[in-house]
Amino acid sequence: MTEKRLSYQVKYRVIYADTDKMGIAYHGNYLRWFEIGRSELFRSLGLTYKQIETRGNVYLPVLEAYCKYRAPAQYDDVLTIDTTLDRSVKGGMKFEYRIIGEDEQTIVAEGYTRHAFVDNQGRIVRPPGFLKELLDRFG
Amino acid sequence: MTEKRLSYQVKYRVIYADTDKMGIAYHGNYLRWFEIGRSELFRSLGLTYKQIETRGNVYLPVLEAYCKYRAPAQYDDVLTIDTTLDRSVKGGMKFEYRIIGEDEQTIVAEGYTRHAFVDNQGRIVRPPGFLKELLDRFG
Amino acid sequence: MTEKRLSYQVKYRVIYADTDKMGIAYHGNYLRWFEIGRSELFRSLGLTYKQIETRGNVYLPVLEAYCKYRAPAQYDDVLTIDTTLDRSVKGGMKFEYRIIGEDEQTIVAEGYTRHAFVDNQGRIVRPPGFLKELLDRFG
Amino acid sequence: MTEKRLSYQVKYRVIYADTDKMGIAYHGNYLRWFEIGRSELFRSLGLTYKQIETRGNVYLPVLEAYCKYRAPAQYDDVLTIDTTLDRSVKGGMKFEYRIIGEDEQTIVAEGYTRHAFVDNQGRIVRPPGFLKELLDRFG
Repeated sequence: MTEKRLSYQVKYRVIYADTDKMGIAYHGNYLRWFEIGRSELFRSLGLTYKQIETRGNVYLPVLEAYCKYRAPAQYDDVLTIDTTLDRSVKGGMKFEYRIIGEDEQTIVAEGYTRHAFVDNQGRIVRPPGFLKELLDRFG
Repeated sequence: MTEKRLSYQVKYRVIYADTDKMGIAYHGNYLRWFEIGRSELFRSLGLTYKQIETRGNVYLPVLEAYCKYRAPAQYDDVLTIDTTLDRSVKGGMKFEYRIIGEDEQTIVAEGYTRHAFVDNQGRIVRPPGFLKELLDRFG
Repeated sequence: MTEKRLSYQVKYRVIYADTDKMGIAYHGNYLRWFEIGRSELFRSLGLTYKQIETRGNVYLPVLEAYCKYRAPAQYDDVLTIDTTLDRSVKGGMKFEYRIIGEDEQTIVAEGYTRHAFVDNQGRIVRPPGFLKELLDRFG
Repeated sequence: MTEKRLSYQVKYRVIYADTDKMGIAYHGNYLRWFEIGRSELFRSLGLTYKQIETRGNVYLPVLEAYCKYRAPAQYDDVLTIDTTLDRSVKGGMKFEYRIIGEDEQTIVAEGYTRHAFVDNQGRIVRPPGFLKELLDRFG
């Protein structure tokens, strides 16, 4: 059922600062793009990650990050960051990402991040109620 | 046999620019530290990554990167980047990393990167002879 | 005469990676935003910086950069990057920037960058004809 | 009198992540190197910037940053970051930097940063006593 799919796409243009002397985007920058992807996915649901922190007093540090680089991203390319929330994960959150190239077809990279809910002391906590409710609405 | 183990340790001090508003090092920066680790491992073998590019006319783009974050790294911490070459991988290179905390005990993070050998057109090539010889010397 | 004014505004949203442990955007990142500003100014004129490099075989390295920080930029703020080309500068280019805050009023930062025209050996060259013509059209 | 001069030199090796598609270090990264310079100058005086924040409950945000780029820095170059505290500045701090190239002669870049003392609400405050005493000892 499509209503269960929590996905969002956002565009990002590669800048000079993102490139390296190989002439392509430095691999480390993809984790920044994953961040943009999941932030905008939250925003599309009507809840910003900033609100999760301020209203929920909860943080979502990254526990794991993985990226497979399939094709280089070039300077000035407009990439599509496609982010999906994996609803099967409990007690934390997992996001999956696809970075799609300027041609809107080529898979430039794929990956995921896993996150815990922690309080401001870094202790594992339950997700705030308003986040749980929001996600439950989507299946 | 210890002579078969291709490992190297290098120190890195976390700077302000590395931190984020959670007060700890931003997760994306660990891939920079992995880069420092494998560069210094090459250098310790008597061959710099720069020489691989200039003498071998070969590049080692990252195909895959993975990082598991076990404990936060704080501003001004001196981390140890421990890098090991996985000699079982053929037709490319795989490096494994451990980031060890200021106390020289805590595993802050663990991960790996996989690399291909490509020419300046991005085509897969064999490793340059001088690199192969060097690695063979270590088992 | 307003047609002489070469300005352009583009939006940028501050991400977690941009912040530091002071809780605000790290000062070094503003130079990235200046880059975005001048790239989009070029694009608004119908010429991309990428084209200057590829068609003109010319580069515009930064000779000087200055930034005055007037107010902090916070995580998730949508900033306006306002870029103006200073037409009085000959033999190179100078861009002036204002970073405007989320409220679209507060001046978060102001600065400039100066650039030379160089070839791929780093030697100073004249600007490519098509760039000169384009700029002349604006006074 | 040499005892009045508050200077310190620290080395930094340019990594791949620092470079851009022009094949040299991206200009924005120099502000990171300036940060390393002033941090290590503090440390050389027996006081870390971290201690200023934690013991003094005071922060030193950057008010102004300037950099003049004189020569490119290449991948794998070992740069010298030479930092001097300008003792003539009152009610804040000003640091001057020179980035010296791999050959230990070429001036790669020069610049400065100016800083205010603020509390955790961002209000201007006096420098903590222990910092003032330390600096007074040097003239």
